[in-house]
Amino acid sequence: MKFLVRMDVHPPLDMPAEEFDKIKATEKEYSQQLQREGVWPEIWRVVGEYSNYSIFEVRDNDHLHEVLQGLPLFPYMDIEVTPLAKHPSDIK
Amino acid sequence: MKFLVRMDVHPPLDMPAEEFDKIKATEKEYSQQLQREGVWPEIWRVVGEYSNYSIFEVRDNDHLHEVLQGLPLFPYMDIEVTPLAKHPSDIK
Amino acid sequence: MKFLVRMDVHPPLDMPAEEFDKIKATEKEYSQQLQREGVWPEIWRVVGEYSNYSIFEVRDNDHLHEVLQGLPLFPYMDIEVTPLAKHPSDIK
Amino acid sequence: MKFLVRMDVHPPLDMPAEEFDKIKATEKEYSQQLQREGVWPEIWRVVGEYSNYSIFEVRDNDHLHEVLQGLPLFPYMDIEVTPLAKHPSDIK
Amino acid sequence: MKFLVRMDVHPPLDMPAEEFDKIKATEKEYSQQLQREGVWPEIWRVVGEYSNYSIFEVRDNDHLHEVLQGLPLFPYMDIEVTPLAKHPSDIK
Amino acid sequence: MKFLVRMDVHPPLDMPAEEFDKIKATEKEYSQQLQREGVWPEIWRVVGEYSNYSIFEVRDNDHLHEVLQGLPLFPYMDIEVTPLAKHPSDIK
Amino acid sequence: MKFLVRMDVHPPLDMPAEEFDKIKATEKEYSQQLQREGVWPEIWRVVGEYSNYSIFEVRDNDHLHEVLQGLPLFPYMDIEVTPLAKHPSDIK
Amino acid sequence: MKFLVRMDVHPPLDMPAEEFDKIKATEKEYSQQLQREGVWPEIWRVVGEYSNYSIFEVRDNDHLHEVLQGLPLFPYMDIEVTPLAKHPSDIK
Amino acid sequence: MKFLVRMDVHPPLDMPAEEFDKIKATEKEYSQQLQREGVWPEIWRVVGEYSNYSIFEVRDNDHLHEVLQGLPLFPYMDIEVTPLAKHPSDIK
Amino acid sequence: MKFLVRMDVHPPLDMPAEEFDKIKATEKEYSQQLQREGVWPEIWRVVGEYSNYSIFEVRDNDHLHEVLQGLPLFPYMDIEVTPLAKHPSDIK
Repeated sequence: MKFLVRMDVHPPLDMPAEEFDKIKATEKEYSQQLQREGVWPEIWRVVGEYSNYSIFEVRDNDHLHEVLQGLPLFPYMDIEVTPLAKHPSDIK
Repeated sequence: MKFLVRMDVHPPLDMPAEEFDKIKATEKEYSQQLQREGVWPEIWRVVGEYSNYSIFEVRDNDHLHEVLQGLPLFPYMDIEVTPLAKHPSDIK
Repeated sequence: MKFLVRMDVHPPLDMPAEEFDKIKATEKEYSQQLQREGVWPEIWRVVGEYSNYSIFEVRDNDHLHEVLQGLPLFPYMDIEVTPLAKHPSDIK
Repeated sequence: MKFLVRMDVHPPLDMPAEEFDKIKATEKEYSQQLQREGVWPEIWRVVGEYSNYSIFEVRDNDHLHEVLQGLPLFPYMDIEVTPLAKHPSDIK
Repeated sequence: MKFLVRMDVHPPLDMPAEEFDKIKATEKEYSQQLQREGVWPEIWRVVGEYSNYSIFEVRDNDHLHEVLQGLPLFPYMDIEVTPLAKHPSDIK
Repeated sequence: MKFLVRMDVHPPLDMPAEEFDKIKATEKEYSQQLQREGVWPEIWRVVGEYSNYSIFEVRDNDHLHEVLQGLPLFPYMDIEVTPLAKHPSDIK
Repeated sequence: MKFLVRMDVHPPLDMPAEEFDKIKATEKEYSQQLQREGVWPEIWRVVGEYSNYSIFEVRDNDHLHEVLQGLPLFPYMDIEVTPLAKHPSDIK
Repeated sequence: MKFLVRMDVHPPLDMPAEEFDKIKATEKEYSQQLQREGVWPEIWRVVGEYSNYSIFEVRDNDHLHEVLQGLPLFPYMDIEVTPLAKHPSDIK
Repeated sequence: MKFLVRMDVHPPLDMPAEEFDKIKATEKEYSQQLQREGVWPEIWRVVGEYSNYSIFEVRDNDHLHEVLQGLPLFPYMDIEVTPLAKHPSDIK
Repeated sequence: MKFLVRMDVHPPLDMPAEEFDKIKATEKEYSQQLQREGVWPEIWRVVGEYSNYSIFEVRDNDHLHEVLQGLPLFPYMDIEVTPLAKHPSDIK
C-alpha cells in the first residue's frame, strides 16, 4: 500500500552544528536501510527547500506511523501524509 | 529531470456526461502513450479525491509545459508543479 | 485499518430538488449498507454545516477509494482523508 | 453530547527530555482515567504527526473545556474543537 | 449552553429578487420566534458584509444543529460554529 | 457602539509561572472593572483554547483601542476586532 | 471616526454589459455625493485589480454599515472593514 | 520603475471557443506592442498553469494600472502586483 | 505616487523594555520628520493591534523601499505594500 | 532553462550583528559571481520586505538546487521556486 509523504525539516537554530550533523547521519542510515527493504522506494529533494517528497510502501497505517515516528529528524520536521490508490490510467 | 505534479479535476457540472466521458477517454490514451514513452513514469490516485499525483521525466520546463498543456482535461484542472532533484540519501 | 474522513456537500443550486433528493436517498442506502458491513462504523453530522465526519474501517487505500468514489454524492462533495493509527494511550 | 477534537502537540525544544517525559506520563494517566469514565471514548494517532483525533462524550461545553484545560500537555498544544450531532443516516 | 455562530449569506445571483425576498422574510420570522423563545438571544450585523454574528442558547449540539439547519437561508449560507464556556473573569 | 473581539493568548514559555500569574491577576481586575462600567458587557471562553470572545460597548474606535491596548496581557495576545451594527431582525 | 475599507468587485459575467454599466454609473454618483459630504474622504484604485481602498469618516458602526450596504455594487463586492484610531506618532 | 506581475487566466467555461480565441488574439497583439515599446520587457509562462509572470517597466502606478486594465483578458484574470526596487547585490 | 502600507510590529520578547523604547522613540522622530516632508501624509493605528496603516507619497519604488528599510523598527515588522492609482470616481 | 525564485530572509534575532553581516557579505559575493556567470541574470528587491525575486538560468533541477542550497543565507530563508517556460506571446 503506497503513501506520498512530504517532509519539511526545520533545524533548531540554537543546536550546535556537530550535534545536528550526527542526527542527520543516523537519519541517512535509517532511510537507506528502509530503502533497501523496499519500504521507502522513492525519495526526492524539493528544489530550493530543506524538504523531500517520498513514496512509502507499507503494510498499513500503523506500520507507516511507526516508520515515520522512528525518523531521527522526526522532532524537527513537519510531515504531510497522502494515501495513494491505483489510478485507472496506470499501465503498470 | 523529474517533476512531481498534482492534478485536481473539476468536471464542469453543466456538461453532458457523455461529452465529458469522451474527453476522459482521450485523456487516458494521451496519458498511457506518455507512460509508454517514459515521460510519465508514475501516476497515483489521491484517495477520496478526483485528483492524482504523477511523476514526469522531461527534457526541460518547456517540454513539461507542452505535455501538461496538451492534456485533454487541462481546462478542467488545477495543476501544481514541484521540481525535484536527487536526494543525498537516495541509494539509487 | 481506520481513516477519519470529512465530507462537505455542495448541492448544485441549479439541479431540481426532487432529482437531488433521489441522489441523497441512494446515498443513505449506500451508507447504511456499508455501516451494517462494518466498513463505515461511525458517521456524525458537523453542527451547522452540510458536512459529516466519518470513521472508515477498510482493508487498504484502494478499498477506501473504491468506497468513497462510489458515493452517489461524490461529484458534489469535497472529501478530506486522514489516515489513523493506534494511539499509545488508547486503553482499548 | 459528542465533540471531535484535534490536538497538535508542540514540545518545547528547550525543555529537558526527562521533564517533558514526566508531563507526557501524567497526560497518559489523565487520558486513560477519562477513557475509563467514558468521557474520552476514542483516541487515534494521526499518521506521521505528533497529533491525535479524539471523540469526547460530555455533559456540555463547560464540561469539555474543563477536561481539555486540565490536560497536562495543554500549554504545548493547538486544539481544534468540532461539535457533532446525530447524522440522519446513522443506523445506531 | 452557549454557542457563537457566524453566518455569511451568499444570495444565488440567478434567483429572481422576489423569490429570494420571500425566503428572507420567512428567515426573519423564524429568527424572531427563536429570539422570543430565548434560543437566539443575540444577533448582530457584521459591518460592511452580508453576515451576522449570533449567540445561541441551546440544550445540546443536536438542538443547535436542528435550529441552524431549519434556517430558510441555510442552503445559501456558510456557517461557522464556536462552542463557548463560562470565562473565569466573567462577573455575571 | 458594539464590537466583537477575539483574543488568543500566547503565554511566553520562558517566563516564570509566578510572574505570568501576576499579569493574569491584574488582567482579571482590569477586565472586571470594565465589566462593571458596562464597557465590557460579555466575555466567553472559547472551548478548548486559551482564547475568549468578548463584546465591547464603547464611544468610538479610539476608546476601544485605548481599552484593548491597556490590557496587561496585550503583549502576549493576538486580537481580532469586528465592528458590529444593529441587525434588521433583532427584536431588541 | 475613521475606517479603512477594501472593496473587491466581482462583476457577474452573465449580466449584459449595459445593465452593469448602469449600476456602475449610479455607484459613481452615490460615491461622489458621499465624498462631497465628507463621509468618503479618500478613494484609491488598487493597481492591477478591480478593487479600491477607501477611508470613511462616520458617526458610528451603524452609519458605516448603512453607507456600505447602500452601495449599488454591494451585491457584487467582497468588503473588508478595518477600524482605525489615532496613531501616537501622527503629527496632525 | 519595475513591477513583477502575476496573471492567472480563468476562461469563462460557458463562452464559445471562437469568441474567447478572438479576445486572446487581441491580447497577444496588445502585449507584443507593449513589449516592442519596452513597457513589457519580460513575459514567462508558469509551467503547468494558464498563468504568466511578467516584468513591467512603467513611469508610475497610474501608468501600470492603465496598461493592466487595458488588457483584453482583464475581466477573466486574477492579477497580483509586486513593486520591485534595485537589489544591493545587483551587478547591473 | 501613492502606496498603502500596513506594518505589523512584533516586539522581540527577550529584549529589555528600555532598549526597545529607545528604538520606538527614534522610530517616532523618523516618522514625524517624513510626515513634515510630505512623504508620509497619513498614519493610522489599527484598532486592537500593534499595527498601522499608512499612506506614502514617493518618487518611485526605490524611494519607498529606502524609506521603509530605514525604519528603526524595520527588523521587528512585517510590512505589506499596495501600490495605489487614481480612482475614476475620486472627485479630488 | 529559467526559474523564478522568491527568497524571504529571516535573520536570527539572537545572532550578533557582525556575525550575520559576515554571512551577508559572503552571500553578496556568491550571488555576484553567479550573476557574472549568467546563472543568476536578474535579482530585484521586493519593496518594503527583506525579500528578493530572482531569475535563474540553469541546466536542470539539480543544478538549481545545488546553487540555492549553496547560498550562505540558505538556513535563514524561505525559498519558493516557480519553473518558467517560453510564453507564446514573447517576442524575444
